[in-house]
Amino acid sequence: MTAPATVAAPPTTADLAERLRAGDRLALTRAITQVENRRPAAAALLRAITPHTGHAYLLGITGPPGGGKSTLTTQLIKALRARGERVAVIAVDPTSAISGGALLGDRIRMLEFYQDNGVFIRSMASRGVLGGLAATTGEVTRVLDAFGFDWIIIETVGVGQGEVAVAGLADTTLLIEVPGLGDDVQAIKAGVLEVADILVVNKADKEGATRLVTTLRGMLSLAHSTGWSPPIVKTIAAEGQGITELLAEIAKHRAYLDTTQQRAARLRTRLRAETLDRAGDLLLARLTALLDRDPAFAGALDDLAARTVDPAAIAAALVAQLGA
Amino acid sequence: MTAPATVAAPPTTADLAERLRAGDRLALTRAITQVENRRPAAAALLRAITPHTGHAYLLGITGPPGGGKSTLTTQLIKALRARGERVAVIAVDPTSAISGGALLGDRIRMLEFYQDNGVFIRSMASRGVLGGLAATTGEVTRVLDAFGFDWIIIETVGVGQGEVAVAGLADTTLLIEVPGLGDDVQAIKAGVLEVADILVVNKADKEGATRLVTTLRGMLSLAHSTGWSPPIVKTIAAEGQGITELLAEIAKHRAYLDTTQQRAARLRTRLRAETLDRAGDLLLARLTALLDRDPAFAGALDDLAARTVDPAAIAAALVAQLGA
Repeated sequence: MTAPATVAAPPTTADLAERLRAGDRLALTRAITQVENRRPAAAALLRAITPHTGHAYLLGITGPPGGGKSTLTTQLIKALRARGERVAVIAVDPTSAISGGALLGDRIRMLEFYQDNGVFIRSMASRGVLGGLAATTGEVTRVLDAFGFDWIIIETVGVGQGEVAVAGLADTTLLIEVPGLGDDVQAIKAGVLEVADILVVNKADKEGATRLVTTLRGMLSLAHSTGWSPPIVKTIAAEGQGITELLAEIAKHRAYLDTTQQRAARLRTRLRAETLDRAGDLLLARLTALLDRDPAFAGALDDLAARTVDPAAIAAALVAQLGA
Repeated sequence: MTAPATVAAPPTTADLAERLRAGDRLALTRAITQVENRRPAAAALLRAITPHTGHAYLLGITGPPGGGKSTLTTQLIKALRARGERVAVIAVDPTSAISGGALLGDRIRMLEFYQDNGVFIRSMASRGVLGGLAATTGEVTRVLDAFGFDWIIIETVGVGQGEVAVAGLADTTLLIEVPGLGDDVQAIKAGVLEVADILVVNKADKEGATRLVTTLRGMLSLAHSTGWSPPIVKTIAAEGQGITELLAEIAKHRAYLDTTQQRAARLRTRLRAETLDRAGDLLLARLTALLDRDPAFAGALDDLAARTVDPAAIAAALVAQLGA
């Protein structure tokens, strides 16, 4: 005789994977939470779903704050939904390493698509500079992929490392620029430009838009070509202008990646980076434990602070102690 | 009988350390290049100079592109030079992971102070997301410190991780904000605010400056206090306005750190992060070599791409193979 179940037991990994693939949104949320928080169950879940991934197209969107990334993403969601395609958004916020939590803007967006089961928006904190972004974003991407989304948009707030990092995570990367963000030479850097597959000049009705396009075109002409010349698309995201043209350019880039086998090459690069990122995380945890708790390193910080030894020496000792 | 030396032999480490401490600028440039490029000789040099560091005060300056960081730094240099203090600047550019090279703006600044031996400006590329920034910046900082600079300004172009990272590298961190960078809620994030010891509202003559100050004050009032309430200083860096007030606030924060022993605590945190960063780099190099060249992992990328295995599994195997 068993008592009636009043509280549902947490689903097993096999259960969760099955429900996820069947399109159960509660299972989706639960799976992402497991992955983000690195719960022990996440590893088995990811193993179970990995064979069922590879359908989704990954679109990276990046650019400076105030560039209109959220607005542009919202317009892309609407356009893709009008075609019946399902869209997930991962908004990676590199600042929430400290504060955590979703941005207000993301919450407003979530409300806008609240009743649409074909849309899913998740804010994700990155875990600081040392590792984590590639691995965790990759894992969440696989969960969303296994669920059946056609598009996964990975949006990063950030300039610099964030942009370079997001480019490693996507099939096609959009770089948004807007007129009037101070000195163009400072704001648009060659390194950032190199990660872009498509340049978007948003707020194209603002003063300086034409000059910005000319500057970008000039910078692109100086870059060494890799077979794909990034187009420049003008948009006014707040009014929905330029979205059709942008989607057409994304389709062109997607076709280019497929015909040149570069999509497969990008996947390999991504999986390699994710593997190294995850391995680095595992080792960093061990290094930290050694430095903070191993008796052999009890006086290490005092010695460092007294400047009788330098960090490289302690680093070498940590690596030796690890047995590596 | 020896032939006359027509080309000077490269200096020994002891030589270089000695000349560096004697204020030889050629030795300074050479030492930084060794450290940045991780030449074998750099390790011994850093060991030799470490006991002679600890004099310089580290000032971090960060904020969004177009915020006027370079202009503000230039004004601070001028004001500090007028007092006879010597200033070095490390401009960390998180985008040059790909492109390398100094920004045009940095080159112009260097020209401006070209004839002043009390000023040194160096652009530094960060080495991508996984490690490197903390360690290399820390090492270059020690070289500049041993040379005898009174101030080392560490400037990062970037929003998000860059800002959080620079705060870990400095004694006092300035966060620059400017009016008109789009949506305030998006542009000024709580996580970024938490790393700031002093907030600078630059371009304070622009529309929206008063509103920005009010917004920042409101956000600060919500933050949990740690004993220091970050002041908000209005500047118009392009006209040199507000620089005296800013230096006064920096002096106050410096005194606060000293009287509360927090400067020593920050040093320890910094050295700990640098040690872990350097150890992580050592291990990442080994992981990469294993994954790319060890026969045991010859088929790993194919398996990953075929989705028969997931990155976490390969990561665990890499760590095991490393013997750690």
